Amino acid sequence: MKVKLSYRLLFVLFTKWASAQTYRRLGGCPTLGCVFPPDQADFLAGQYFDIRVEVHAPKNGSEAIGLPPDKHFKFTIAKGTEEPKPVTEYFGLQEPELEAWGHSWYEDLFAEDEQKPSIADVTSKAYRRVALHEPGAEYTATLSYNNGSTTKATWLVRDLQDVRKTKNIILFIGDGMTTNMITAARLMAHKSINGKYQSTMQMDKFPVLGHQMTHSLDSFITDSANSASALYTGHKSSVNCLGVYADSSQDPFDDPKVETIAELFHRLTGGSVGIVSTAMISDATPGALTAHTRLRDEHPAVIDSFLNGITNYTWTEWSGPDVLFGGGAELFYSPALGGEGYQGKDYYEEFAKRGYQVLWNQTSLADANISEKALGIFTEGNMATWLDRNVYATNAQKFLSPSGDQTPALDQPGLENMTVKAIEILHQRSADKGFFLMSEAASIDKAMHKLDYNRALGELLELDQTIKASFEQLDELGIRKETLVLVTADHGHGFDVMGSVDTKYLAAQDTDRKKRSAIGTYEKSGLSQYTNTGNLTYVDANFPSNWDPRYALFQGLTGTPDHRENFRVNKEGRTPAVVVDGEAVVNPDDAKDGITRDGTLPVSEQQGVHSLTDVPVFAEGPCQELFGGVYNNVDIFFKMAGCLGLARGQDEGR
Amino acid sequence: MKVKLSYRLLFVLFTKWASAQTYRRLGGCPTLGCVFPPDQADFLAGQYFDIRVEVHAPKNGSEAIGLPPDKHFKFTIAKGTEEPKPVTEYFGLQEPELEAWGHSWYEDLFAEDEQKPSIADVTSKAYRRVALHEPGAEYTATLSYNNGSTTKATWLVRDLQDVRKTKNIILFIGDGMTTNMITAARLMAHKSINGKYQSTMQMDKFPVLGHQMTHSLDSFITDSANSASALYTGHKSSVNCLGVYADSSQDPFDDPKVETIAELFHRLTGGSVGIVSTAMISDATPGALTAHTRLRDEHPAVIDSFLNGITNYTWTEWSGPDVLFGGGAELFYSPALGGEGYQGKDYYEEFAKRGYQVLWNQTSLADANISEKALGIFTEGNMATWLDRNVYATNAQKFLSPSGDQTPALDQPGLENMTVKAIEILHQRSADKGFFLMSEAASIDKAMHKLDYNRALGELLELDQTIKASFEQLDELGIRKETLVLVTADHGHGFDVMGSVDTKYLAAQDTDRKKRSAIGTYEKSGLSQYTNTGNLTYVDANFPSNWDPRYALFQGLTGTPDHRENFRVNKEGRTPAVVVDGEAVVNPDDAKDGITRDGTLPVSEQQGVHSLTDVPVFAEGPCQELFGGVYNNVDIFFKMAGCLGLARGQDEGR
Repeated sequence: MKVKLSYRLLFVLFTKWASAQTYRRLGGCPTLGCVFPPDQADFLAGQYFDIRVEVHAPKNGSEAIGLPPDKHFKFTIAKGTEEPKPVTEYFGLQEPELEAWGHSWYEDLFAEDEQKPSIADVTSKAYRRVALHEPGAEYTATLSYNNGSTTKATWLVRDLQDVRKTKNIILFIGDGMTTNMITAARLMAHKSINGKYQSTMQMDKFPVLGHQMTHSLDSFITDSANSASALYTGHKSSVNCLGVYADSSQDPFDDPKVETIAELFHRLTGGSVGIVSTAMISDATPGALTAHTRLRDEHPAVIDSFLNGITNYTWTEWSGPDVLFGGGAELFYSPALGGEGYQGKDYYEEFAKRGYQVLWNQTSLADANISEKALGIFTEGNMATWLDRNVYATNAQKFLSPSGDQTPALDQPGLENMTVKAIEILHQRSADKGFFLMSEAASIDKAMHKLDYNRALGELLELDQTIKASFEQLDELGIRKETLVLVTADHGHGFDVMGSVDTKYLAAQDTDRKKRSAIGTYEKSGLSQYTNTGNLTYVDANFPSNWDPRYALFQGLTGTPDHRENFRVNKEGRTPAVVVDGEAVVNPDDAKDGITRDGTLPVSEQQGVHSLTDVPVFAEGPCQELFGGVYNNVDIFFKMAGCLGLARGQDEGR
Repeated sequence: MKVKLSYRLLFVLFTKWASAQTYRRLGGCPTLGCVFPPDQADFLAGQYFDIRVEVHAPKNGSEAIGLPPDKHFKFTIAKGTEEPKPVTEYFGLQEPELEAWGHSWYEDLFAEDEQKPSIADVTSKAYRRVALHEPGAEYTATLSYNNGSTTKATWLVRDLQDVRKTKNIILFIGDGMTTNMITAARLMAHKSINGKYQSTMQMDKFPVLGHQMTHSLDSFITDSANSASALYTGHKSSVNCLGVYADSSQDPFDDPKVETIAELFHRLTGGSVGIVSTAMISDATPGALTAHTRLRDEHPAVIDSFLNGITNYTWTEWSGPDVLFGGGAELFYSPALGGEGYQGKDYYEEFAKRGYQVLWNQTSLADANISEKALGIFTEGNMATWLDRNVYATNAQKFLSPSGDQTPALDQPGLENMTVKAIEILHQRSADKGFFLMSEAASIDKAMHKLDYNRALGELLELDQTIKASFEQLDELGIRKETLVLVTADHGHGFDVMGSVDTKYLAAQDTDRKKRSAIGTYEKSGLSQYTNTGNLTYVDANFPSNWDPRYALFQGLTGTPDHRENFRVNKEGRTPAVVVDGEAVVNPDDAKDGITRDGTLPVSEQQGVHSLTDVPVFAEGPCQELFGGVYNNVDIFFKMAGCLGLARGQDEGR
């Protein structure tokens, strides 16, 4: 996958990837000259980044210019009002080789229906691993091409200094988590009397609240890859990108990179990094801390990047996280067992060779040596949800052991177990250098995608319990006051609650129109029935006591596939739609007594989708005052990096 | 309407109001003894309130007890661990008359389908205009009834002192406004380059952000009446209630009252009160500042309460707001012209007699004397929206003159005009006493109810512009630093954006399933097309330059009636559903080229509905630090009252 393909070969492959870009020639490049990082990019002083410039020569379509691809473009950089200098001179680089390829896209849906792509020849150069070191300075990068055209980018180095204000940061990410969901989870788990909650969420107790805007560089709805990259690098990018700007070349590993907070923190302070997720650990949110690729689905390479960093281009120093906990065992175990490890390797072995203890279940996690680096992989794929571990526990049978032996993974830890252990290890190993821990409740989003509302809200409540347990652990270690704790989401996922449903009445009606009468809004919504004692086998104040009450929440999404809805908890997990003759239609096995609903999304879509909405940020600890009000997701990187004192006025080497 | 009906007469009326209470005997009263204010109620020291106790004797249904109604119940109050005293002794009151009535409700939807109400005989007493004066003190109110049953309520006087920290408060309410909507409005009105906004909302600039929980006393979805009452009184109540707890009697004017912040501020400081709304001014959000009734639709009485306060029971001193601006002219003009004024009176005359200048249009508003009290009523019903005044201005023809002469109301002010003028008048008239102004963007909610998304977001943008203009006015008057400015909502309304829609492609397809392919999510959402220059006749940096772009927002609600959707701006305003044979069905005139969608709400519902979601609170000014984090809507009353120093350790009379 890392093979550098020639222009000729690429052209042969052309038809295969013609639909990769749809409705826009290239994100972040409205003109025919492209500069990455693009106009309006902000940098931390000393943060490494790559530069990629491209010149496009469209051969047909609305932008056709009838010029051959420009092989003699110029690229200069100027600080403030100073004289522009060639980029190679500015950064002391060798002139890189000229690259060239073909690129195609559809201009709109009509063109796609007619299978009429627009095509451009592209010439390009990449300048690798540079940095700007003057806080507050503004730069103008200018690409000159096609006999007199120019594309300018204004770059700003944020005015942050090398003053460290926090020893540690814990960044909790509730994937897809919105205020709507937090409100619903609170209603399900916490008892109220006459409108007054008798207990509240841990999130409700944070002293500082902010909102972050999550849109991408070139689309207003984001995915988890580029939104995580924005949080970790301070740079907005495109959907599917991890730690890079998306160029138009086919190679998913040659796109221009930006250094992440994990890489910066490790390189500059030697502090410890922990990565915890309930997803397969190569998923976008954990992966974006070390991976640099345009395609988030390059899972084996993401796993390799955790251990080895980026080796195909000169990049920043990286020697692996101190803690890496999650799912995705199929990317680790031996190919002999069917493992899909990068370049056919056994990554349990690779990690073990580098001094990691390897943990496969909650028992070994609990007993782990807190002085050693730890790799904990607890199942294939994504980990079991809180609901599957605690309420409908027979579902745990469906998860496969991390060993690769095809037995069930019955002893999986939860986010709380993983996170508390991670804090212990990171604190022990980092000593006075401090740590950065990212802990993700991944299946809030994953379950919402499947319209599996209750399972998603259970994950949100487990995140809340994890935050509470983490504060207790910080208190016990005596480091709460030197630890900035942030809780946010990478983006929102559609979800809303508008009332209640009498599920008994709904099931008893024989037409969809009558079933709709089961819904109660306003005064008929009544009070939460999830906090009444049910017949479940566990008691926990942070979770509902009855997941399947007669009066359930009237909840749902605005963007859905065809599905049927009965508003009851999905005991075995939900698949709302299945594909028949190339179109997603109602899953005949789902919610059989429910209301049939046409989807609102394209008929190709089997799942719910992300939302535009700003998402909340909760902050407590050093620098908490920086996190109030409304800001962009990239600002969270700068606030964290500023609080860790990571800005550097001069190069401190790799 | 204020006639006290006898028990016998009420029983005759029984069948008529049998469906008033559905699925619950009475909110806030799970046992057969009811105490209002109920358990968990909090009070400001010195805040007046009424007490109502009821004893229910259900005659059938699941709660039937086979006892006659108890006429000899006892009610006591105890401070802390002190000995309980009879309520009359505690507050020095005469024993009130025993009241009695019948009450019925349906226990569930099956009972309603079968028309089998449950019935109870009720005995009751009300104790009027009492107050608790000891900050921090806790009280136990105990109702003893039915030979040994008791219902206890714990009441707390919040520990707030008589120390004033702000001279003025401006409380902006975006009715139904959610974070989802703010995010969408920002995207439509503010230009961004490569993911970085080049300008932002005024709301984005506030230093402090909080979230408030909006649920009612007895239902988790609220309406604007009881949510406004919670913000203004610190007491949660039931849907449709203005400044009262809902009792089970038929009279909508005898329910137990609580004093509002407008009444408290006026009584205790003599400061000026301003009330501004784009709704008819008797609507719930403005009305809740002075009205005290269980039924928000008692519009004529609400108008009377603005001028005269509450006179049917001994209540707090009130002499009218200094500013009252909004719509609803039909409640003011002469009955000779068809006016519906309270008790057949001309309320323009009533206000004029009390020294108010009466303003009917933007011209007279601009010229108004800032030293005089002002009543500004600018149209019948709700005022024209920003979109109807500025973009599709021929719609203004549909609004009727405030004079009652049936001519169009073509010269209506907007929220900005009204609010800025209100600030001028209030500042001038209040001198050193300070002012309290509530300014409401009412049609965010009203347009969302009609799925008229763009019209709603236009109202939100006008609110944002109003906030900006208000800060400029405060700066000009030199009072910004002594004015606490709050922006919040009374509750959320369902709304979400999940991508974009190619409206041209959608219109060109001939089946609903093909039309759905016009929707683009994630990378296909692209960038906002509303900020590209269009062909409109106005230019304003705070609003979209093109309301009807080819690539529109893929937006909508989760709770809807049957409707058809084409995602384009509704130039004449929208009516998504109409009633045919008693059921709401698709309006055949709406969005003719759109996608037909079955509703998700009961078929009786013609409109979208409110959401559970917590809503944002933006704060700037004295006490801003109190408004960060997450809290209940009632806390906003206590934070405001505390900042104004309205707690009183002893009675300062009426």
